[in-house]
Amino acid sequence: MKKILVMHGPNINLTGKREPGQYGTTPFAQMNEEFVAFAKANDMDCDIFQSNHEGELIDKLHASMGVYDGIVLNAGAYTHYSYALRDAIAAIELPVVEVHMSNVHKREEFRHHSVISPVCCGVICGFGKNSYILGISALKELLF
Amino acid sequence: MKKILVMHGPNINLTGKREPGQYGTTPFAQMNEEFVAFAKANDMDCDIFQSNHEGELIDKLHASMGVYDGIVLNAGAYTHYSYALRDAIAAIELPVVEVHMSNVHKREEFRHHSVISPVCCGVICGFGKNSYILGISALKELLF
Amino acid sequence: MKKILVMHGPNINLTGKREPGQYGTTPFAQMNEEFVAFAKANDMDCDIFQSNHEGELIDKLHASMGVYDGIVLNAGAYTHYSYALRDAIAAIELPVVEVHMSNVHKREEFRHHSVISPVCCGVICGFGKNSYILGISALKELLF
Amino acid sequence: MKKILVMHGPNINLTGKREPGQYGTTPFAQMNEEFVAFAKANDMDCDIFQSNHEGELIDKLHASMGVYDGIVLNAGAYTHYSYALRDAIAAIELPVVEVHMSNVHKREEFRHHSVISPVCCGVICGFGKNSYILGISALKELLF
Amino acid sequence: MKKILVMHGPNINLTGKREPGQYGTTPFAQMNEEFVAFAKANDMDCDIFQSNHEGELIDKLHASMGVYDGIVLNAGAYTHYSYALRDAIAAIELPVVEVHMSNVHKREEFRHHSVISPVCCGVICGFGKNSYILGISALKELLF
Amino acid sequence: MKKILVMHGPNINLTGKREPGQYGTTPFAQMNEEFVAFAKANDMDCDIFQSNHEGELIDKLHASMGVYDGIVLNAGAYTHYSYALRDAIAAIELPVVEVHMSNVHKREEFRHHSVISPVCCGVICGFGKNSYILGISALKELLF
Amino acid sequence: MKKILVMHGPNINLTGKREPGQYGTTPFAQMNEEFVAFAKANDMDCDIFQSNHEGELIDKLHASMGVYDGIVLNAGAYTHYSYALRDAIAAIELPVVEVHMSNVHKREEFRHHSVISPVCCGVICGFGKNSYILGISALKELLF
Amino acid sequence: MKKILVMHGPNINLTGKREPGQYGTTPFAQMNEEFVAFAKANDMDCDIFQSNHEGELIDKLHASMGVYDGIVLNAGAYTHYSYALRDAIAAIELPVVEVHMSNVHKREEFRHHSVISPVCCGVICGFGKNSYILGISALKELLF
Amino acid sequence: MKKILVMHGPNINLTGKREPGQYGTTPFAQMNEEFVAFAKANDMDCDIFQSNHEGELIDKLHASMGVYDGIVLNAGAYTHYSYALRDAIAAIELPVVEVHMSNVHKREEFRHHSVISPVCCGVICGFGKNSYILGISALKELLF
Amino acid sequence: MKKILVMHGPNINLTGKREPGQYGTTPFAQMNEEFVAFAKANDMDCDIFQSNHEGELIDKLHASMGVYDGIVLNAGAYTHYSYALRDAIAAIELPVVEVHMSNVHKREEFRHHSVISPVCCGVICGFGKNSYILGISALKELLF
Amino acid sequence: MKKILVMHGPNINLTGKREPGQYGTTPFAQMNEEFVAFAKANDMDCDIFQSNHEGELIDKLHASMGVYDGIVLNAGAYTHYSYALRDAIAAIELPVVEVHMSNVHKREEFRHHSVISPVCCGVICGFGKNSYILGISALKELLF
Amino acid sequence: MKKILVMHGPNINLTGKREPGQYGTTPFAQMNEEFVAFAKANDMDCDIFQSNHEGELIDKLHASMGVYDGIVLNAGAYTHYSYALRDAIAAIELPVVEVHMSNVHKREEFRHHSVISPVCCGVICGFGKNSYILGISALKELLF
Repeated sequence: MKKILVMHGPNINLTGKREPGQYGTTPFAQMNEEFVAFAKANDMDCDIFQSNHEGELIDKLHASMGVYDGIVLNAGAYTHYSYALRDAIAAIELPVVEVHMSNVHKREEFRHHSVISPVCCGVICGFGKNSYILGISALKELLF
Repeated sequence: MKKILVMHGPNINLTGKREPGQYGTTPFAQMNEEFVAFAKANDMDCDIFQSNHEGELIDKLHASMGVYDGIVLNAGAYTHYSYALRDAIAAIELPVVEVHMSNVHKREEFRHHSVISPVCCGVICGFGKNSYILGISALKELLF
Repeated sequence: MKKILVMHGPNINLTGKREPGQYGTTPFAQMNEEFVAFAKANDMDCDIFQSNHEGELIDKLHASMGVYDGIVLNAGAYTHYSYALRDAIAAIELPVVEVHMSNVHKREEFRHHSVISPVCCGVICGFGKNSYILGISALKELLF
Repeated sequence: MKKILVMHGPNINLTGKREPGQYGTTPFAQMNEEFVAFAKANDMDCDIFQSNHEGELIDKLHASMGVYDGIVLNAGAYTHYSYALRDAIAAIELPVVEVHMSNVHKREEFRHHSVISPVCCGVICGFGKNSYILGISALKELLF
Repeated sequence: MKKILVMHGPNINLTGKREPGQYGTTPFAQMNEEFVAFAKANDMDCDIFQSNHEGELIDKLHASMGVYDGIVLNAGAYTHYSYALRDAIAAIELPVVEVHMSNVHKREEFRHHSVISPVCCGVICGFGKNSYILGISALKELLF
Repeated sequence: MKKILVMHGPNINLTGKREPGQYGTTPFAQMNEEFVAFAKANDMDCDIFQSNHEGELIDKLHASMGVYDGIVLNAGAYTHYSYALRDAIAAIELPVVEVHMSNVHKREEFRHHSVISPVCCGVICGFGKNSYILGISALKELLF
Repeated sequence: MKKILVMHGPNINLTGKREPGQYGTTPFAQMNEEFVAFAKANDMDCDIFQSNHEGELIDKLHASMGVYDGIVLNAGAYTHYSYALRDAIAAIELPVVEVHMSNVHKREEFRHHSVISPVCCGVICGFGKNSYILGISALKELLF
Repeated sequence: MKKILVMHGPNINLTGKREPGQYGTTPFAQMNEEFVAFAKANDMDCDIFQSNHEGELIDKLHASMGVYDGIVLNAGAYTHYSYALRDAIAAIELPVVEVHMSNVHKREEFRHHSVISPVCCGVICGFGKNSYILGISALKELLF
Repeated sequence: MKKILVMHGPNINLTGKREPGQYGTTPFAQMNEEFVAFAKANDMDCDIFQSNHEGELIDKLHASMGVYDGIVLNAGAYTHYSYALRDAIAAIELPVVEVHMSNVHKREEFRHHSVISPVCCGVICGFGKNSYILGISALKELLF
Repeated sequence: MKKILVMHGPNINLTGKREPGQYGTTPFAQMNEEFVAFAKANDMDCDIFQSNHEGELIDKLHASMGVYDGIVLNAGAYTHYSYALRDAIAAIELPVVEVHMSNVHKREEFRHHSVISPVCCGVICGFGKNSYILGISALKELLF
Repeated sequence: MKKILVMHGPNINLTGKREPGQYGTTPFAQMNEEFVAFAKANDMDCDIFQSNHEGELIDKLHASMGVYDGIVLNAGAYTHYSYALRDAIAAIELPVVEVHMSNVHKREEFRHHSVISPVCCGVICGFGKNSYILGISALKELLF
Repeated sequence: MKKILVMHGPNINLTGKREPGQYGTTPFAQMNEEFVAFAKANDMDCDIFQSNHEGELIDKLHASMGVYDGIVLNAGAYTHYSYALRDAIAAIELPVVEVHMSNVHKREEFRHHSVISPVCCGVICGFGKNSYILGISALKELLF
């Protein structure tokens, strides 16, 4: 059985409460339960991690080496400027799938550029919480 | 049963022959058979269309109104400059999922910008032929 | 009697069906009939041509030499990047009036720049189907 | 009977004397007479206003509220930087048609950008004094 | 008792009539009365000046030397390009507080840049007519 | 009685010790006491929070929902790049007033652009510690 | 005997009729005869292909695999934006020599940038129809 | 005897009072007397004109046709954005020499670009009031 | 005896494990021992600090005042965007030497720009772990 | 018999020793002998000149007037910034053919722009030492 | 008696032979004689120096310290990129007047920017050989 | 014993005389003696070379092949634009350490970019003449 991590960056803990037009109405905790269940149904053990702290996200990525086989990452707004996160992803040499709930290309100019995409396997955006589900499917294909 | 279209833009007909590092080694025809089969297994009837002609891609998008319920589109290099294609996608008001086999963000600068993303539902890139499979899954979630 | 051509580029065939806020509700065929009638009332014989294919628009421009005295052209989204169309307009040495139904300057950034304006006689935009009528009037003034 | 204003910005009072290749040889006063006559023939009462002063143009736009039904405006070089004029046009909520005698897109780079286009109904350029006539026609269509 | 000037640039005379979402519904004259009253309550004699003319605003700034102890200035759209106004502010060596009723950073790109901010004491924007009141408070702190 | 928060970002704890020309000589603790006193005199209960950690600032903003009625925020250098902070401000839907002690427009180029201004109510800068006092006044006007 | 293709993009069929200062006065057909003759004299069998259609040029490039040993390509205005053509050239893995009759660097800014140069062997421009002859010579050196 | 005009733009009337490091300490009136005297000594009749109003400067330029043989112009900050002034200079077809007292290239970025230089004969900057004297000398050489 | 700090930013704790081509194979702990030993041999007491948290790096810089005489700082990817770190360095008024193991100018575009260089004494990059040794030598020269 | 010059700029004297992947393995002297021989076989007398000094290249261009009928120039890296060389080429009014051994468009960004192309007859790049041979052929066509 | 140097950069030795529309028809030697004569008539001893070599111009500037009281410099095309020349001018601490015969602002974009202007006293351009005469006059005013 | 070269570019010969705030007061000759002594103490034979001529610096780099084991290079202002120097460094395949006495990142914008850094081993700046000493130390580590 493979072990994966779903990692959420800043403000994503507010999902369900915040801008439902962009992020849907499913509460954060329930959304995570769905991810764990979907992963299990696909033979993967899935942990959840969220932090608003860039440093904690980097620490967790470091700690993932030797523990997880792959990561689904929604880096929130750090996507657009955290070169430190980018370096962490590149350093750990695990498959990381970048996901976003909203279609970032329909939104403000600054959301159109991701500094982490070049070091991730691939990118999925625009499908609400289903972006994570597709990300887990993508990992499955990569890991099995 | 829903009806969907997988639409391929310029040069994608060469998949399997061309730059296997970027695009994989599965021949184009076989890849399409896999998409049709996956769609069928997910209760969707799937047609395939490929053209190197921008105008034919636009004509086909127009002709899709009232025929298909959703489209998975790999617009190839037209992704980066065909505002005419963009206008066609916006005009037909069908859900269109943008996909790319390679992770375009790891490649040349000009491939980092898509003129069609803002009028598509979402974007999936970097998973080889599996990008299409994930795109079909995404459509399923949207259509059912 | 002078002979003129009204030439429509990509997606304009959907006028009447597509984004009525931008393009009005008059069906495409009826709109063209009005142009022919207005031209006739102004002593001009008017043909209509529409294509979503950049190449066909260029071919038609070439074929216009020696046939038409002037052209009213709505190049649709090709306006913004088709340097091939621009070269064709410059090559045929006929008066070409650039028209747009919407006020392109109120819309997305990419619509603010036209690559064909420098080789057209003039530009008219923002008056819906009346932009074409004004374009035909402008040609009349130039041709008579 | 509708009441309209033809408003000329800086240096346009020199028309007929200045760069005839760009602006034609009809003297300014005679050109205005033609506009008034054309308007009258189209059931519109037409006043003329010219100033080289940005502030006077703004004052006149303010004073047009409740007096005119629409305005044909050639803002001269203020077109390219007068955000104050732009704000005035937006504030008065009257239909304003932007016109230019020359095809600004054939000329210096700085003339390719208009800061007032996004708050005007539409734009007409390149037809010499006929640009105004077409602008009056456009207003007629909007007002009747 | 200190003497201050509240100076309004182009189009601000229309406040109360124009885009109430941006600028509120208090008529211009009444708004000014409130400023004078607030100043008086804070031991400052307050004059009001408004002009749509860049030159008149500069002349008034020059004439303020030796007359006023400080200025609250809403330069309207001149904020974004009037380097002449900037030079006047720098030349007179009086404390000038830049204010805007709307939060300019929520609006069009061109409103995000002020050419006068570097020569003003400080900037206050986004609080409707209260921006002026805060500006007068700021002057008080600077002058007493 | 309303409850407000004065929130200080990175390096602001050094106020009084650091670059007195830019930030004044009042020690940080004393400055905060003045803010609390001013707020109380204006019928508002004021808490103080400072952190050099982007993540802690975001956590505090989240925790402010349902606790405070408004926030005066000096985000320090995070002002210029923390899109994560911006998203937090937008998510919590409380009035946030952006303040800076120095006139950022007189300083280095990078300080001229704020990524949080578009999601704040308004901005006040350049008045030293008085910027906060004005910010509290601005909140009062918004909350009462 | 080697087999090569001389491929002409949009508007080049008008050579001899169009802007003789830029493109010379030799009619298109005669020019092609000279190329075929020159190739034959250099032991190469030379075919000619022209199209104004981006898609047809791409189709022809695909069809060239296994048929031609090298290609001399004047892509006309597609040179400046057709990333689809670029991808086709890269995909077919044949030596392609980019040629232009005019010295594109003496002309409009947009002609200074070629999107296909990085995937061609080399570039020759500025020598009129002789650019093609030099291109055929270059191919000869590469193929023999 | 030739007749020339020395024309001063915004804020230059403050010379002698304002930033003496940049503009010297000679009072404005005395400086002008020196110019008139120098012109006379060089067989030229010299008038002086100053205005802070862009429109008045344009009006004066128009009125100079047929009156003056040449103009020495210090357009102040209008130098950097007044395309209306530029058009006026181009329209009147008189030799205009652009002068600045300070070396604008040592100062803020925005002062490095002049929109009027391309329509003036030449430019002289950096020599304090002597820039005008050199400008009058330059006119003499051009006019005699 | 002087007291110095070697400070490592994000991901540098992985040195020895991560991209050995860029960062060498010496384990992080051993590398630090070498720095301490080299410092001691040069009469300096050297502490080591590493964190992936921007806030902790800032806190540590603040805490360095009055404790250390100088700092050798490898800020990792924060080098490229952390204006908060920059402000902290400027605020503490200690000599800080910026070092990088790799030659950042041979790598991705974003690594070519450092936001902290203007507030450091100097910069050393490209010599692997020897960059730190050179940095300590540079501090020695500055401190003794 | 015509007389031509093959002129080599900086570092080209190292050809054969330096980066053979880019520049081939033929020693510099032997390469030049081939050019002289090819020119002779084409009825042209060919001299060779190489210098690493911008000034010497300019001096030689000046000295070529009245001596040579045409020049084949590989300006090496001066191609990308030597406006002085450009002015020399423009001044001497001889046909100059710009050549490069490597396809500069496949290399670093800075090599994509040539400041001398607009004043040369044409450009040939990407064919190794054969670029010179093609350049001599091009000159022949121009001179005979 | 003061001692000055007139220094000419690359290609200026061709004056009289080259592009007479830009540079006039007076031969270089004769032009220099006029400068020496004019200087002498103004109580200054004037030497002439010309070189096409950037290094020689720098060497001469160094050698001017203690020899000349001021320099009139036409740096030719080095004006636009020679930061080495700029550093030399700044280092020698002599008054240097930058001159150009043509009005560089009427010419190609690259000629609009001078890297030496910020370290010169002032700039004079557009008056043909008279630019030098005015430059000598300017030096006189500075030196006496 | 290794043999190294310390190479100085333009204007560095003036060190000690020029802008002592930037470059220190040690005379150039004495500074070089210190470098030779330091090298000798570190078992390296050190030569010194200085030139203001770009071409001479390139010639010297060429001549260093087979003579020196490494180079410490302060290219002065050529650092910022001499691609010819860059090519020379890349061609000779010797370790070159780039040094600057001043911290170039604290100075003018143009000094922030080095065109030679990507082909040097590493960069050291900001430590006055000690930058060279550190550069020699860096070479030692690379060579032994």
